[in-house]
Amino acid sequence: MAIDSQAPSPIIILDQPQMGENIGAAARAMGNFGIKQLRLVSPRDGWPNEKAKIMASHAGDIIENATVHTRFHDAIADCHRVYATTSRSRNVAIPVLTPREAAMEIVQHHLQGQQSAIMFGAERTGLENDPITFANALVVIPVDTAYASMNLAQAVVICAYEWFVAAKGTIPVSPHKKELASKHEIEGMFDHLATSLDTKGFFSTPALKPSMVRNIRTMLTRADFSSQEVRTLRGIIRALVGRE
Amino acid sequence: MAIDSQAPSPIIILDQPQMGENIGAAARAMGNFGIKQLRLVSPRDGWPNEKAKIMASHAGDIIENATVHTRFHDAIADCHRVYATTSRSRNVAIPVLTPREAAMEIVQHHLQGQQSAIMFGAERTGLENDPITFANALVVIPVDTAYASMNLAQAVVICAYEWFVAAKGTIPVSPHKKELASKHEIEGMFDHLATSLDTKGFFSTPALKPSMVRNIRTMLTRADFSSQEVRTLRGIIRALVGRE
Repeated sequence: MAIDSQAPSPIIILDQPQMGENIGAAARAMGNFGIKQLRLVSPRDGWPNEKAKIMASHAGDIIENATVHTRFHDAIADCHRVYATTSRSRNVAIPVLTPREAAMEIVQHHLQGQQSAIMFGAERTGLENDPITFANALVVIPVDTAYASMNLAQAVVICAYEWFVAAKGTIPVSPHKKELASKHEIEGMFDHLATSLDTKGFFSTPALKPSMVRNIRTMLTRADFSSQEVRTLRGIIRALVGRE
Repeated sequence: MAIDSQAPSPIIILDQPQMGENIGAAARAMGNFGIKQLRLVSPRDGWPNEKAKIMASHAGDIIENATVHTRFHDAIADCHRVYATTSRSRNVAIPVLTPREAAMEIVQHHLQGQQSAIMFGAERTGLENDPITFANALVVIPVDTAYASMNLAQAVVICAYEWFVAAKGTIPVSPHKKELASKHEIEGMFDHLATSLDTKGFFSTPALKPSMVRNIRTMLTRADFSSQEVRTLRGIIRALVGRE
């Protein structure tokens, strides 16, 4: 089925980007491939950034409309699916995709009314472990391991290009439609669970709490819960906790 | 002129490049995707160029080994096939290819011992008509016509990436390996949960219980839990229920 050229595009999220030049170059790359929404989480040099505007060239409107967030949780709250780009596969129990596979998934999810975001980490370090626990899948760009260090904007352009090619191509449409819960709903459930567990003394070894919290989030993210299922799960948590 | 039939990758030719930064970024992109040979035809700001070296990052050897030519004829003399990238299709009687189609051709020609080159024009103007008459095919990167102006290094990275993917095949990124819980373990957790919910009065409408049970089982099955995750979940259930 041919895709409407007005097909909604993924949101690009840059987590803690360092250089304005790279933000601008990323925006220009987005514009080249029909992606308009840019979100920045704690850009190092503040915002607005003159260098970003210059490097964006004709895509200045993408820079002007970019939103800035202090926590990445806010940047992904209204998204249904988050793809975390990393330079290497990590030991995380979520699918690992090539940019092409991710692009095809994103196009299919959009046809079902689901908003996707592709998240990129800081130039020097890449994505930290914490944002990755919010992701539905890792996206690993295949590179020559001898020169694995990739420029941020060039990683963005490859993902944007693959999305554009996938969105303009022809793909089979899955008839199964399901309303995925938004990240906001998932987080609400997760907070509910974590708070309940804390109350009940689940985290008996404080040093292990962060990794336990990450593992639980990964499990719950992977399940692709619908809004209805999130409500059911919250009912389950409520019921299990019962009256104190 | 003799060519190295073992040459594993295409040659990148930049015709009259203007900015050292773009030359360096192009070299870095080449390094990321296993392409080593860079040739420059009349770089505007001369050569060597300090900015190119800085932007190349870890791919400094590609910059150091780059050759400079005054005429593009010399830069392509030992090549068998030349691909000319342009931002728009031109009125030239040669095939017009996407970057992906060109990449597949280049891989095939290399298998037959033929050396290919991919040629890029100056930042401001793109390739002039004269070099295009030496090309075997045009390569047009599909872009959003509203933001058609593409950065030179980003055009290079897309062609380099497509070649790498075509030459190396879909890189098997480590599939997320994990030990799925057995149905026995899943059922044990499920029974634990259902019993706990019953004790807590979750199934307040007996008529709805069977469908609620089915829905919960579906959710928990879909998540593909590992044995370790099942143990964690049972710990969660136990903690939430607490002491009666």
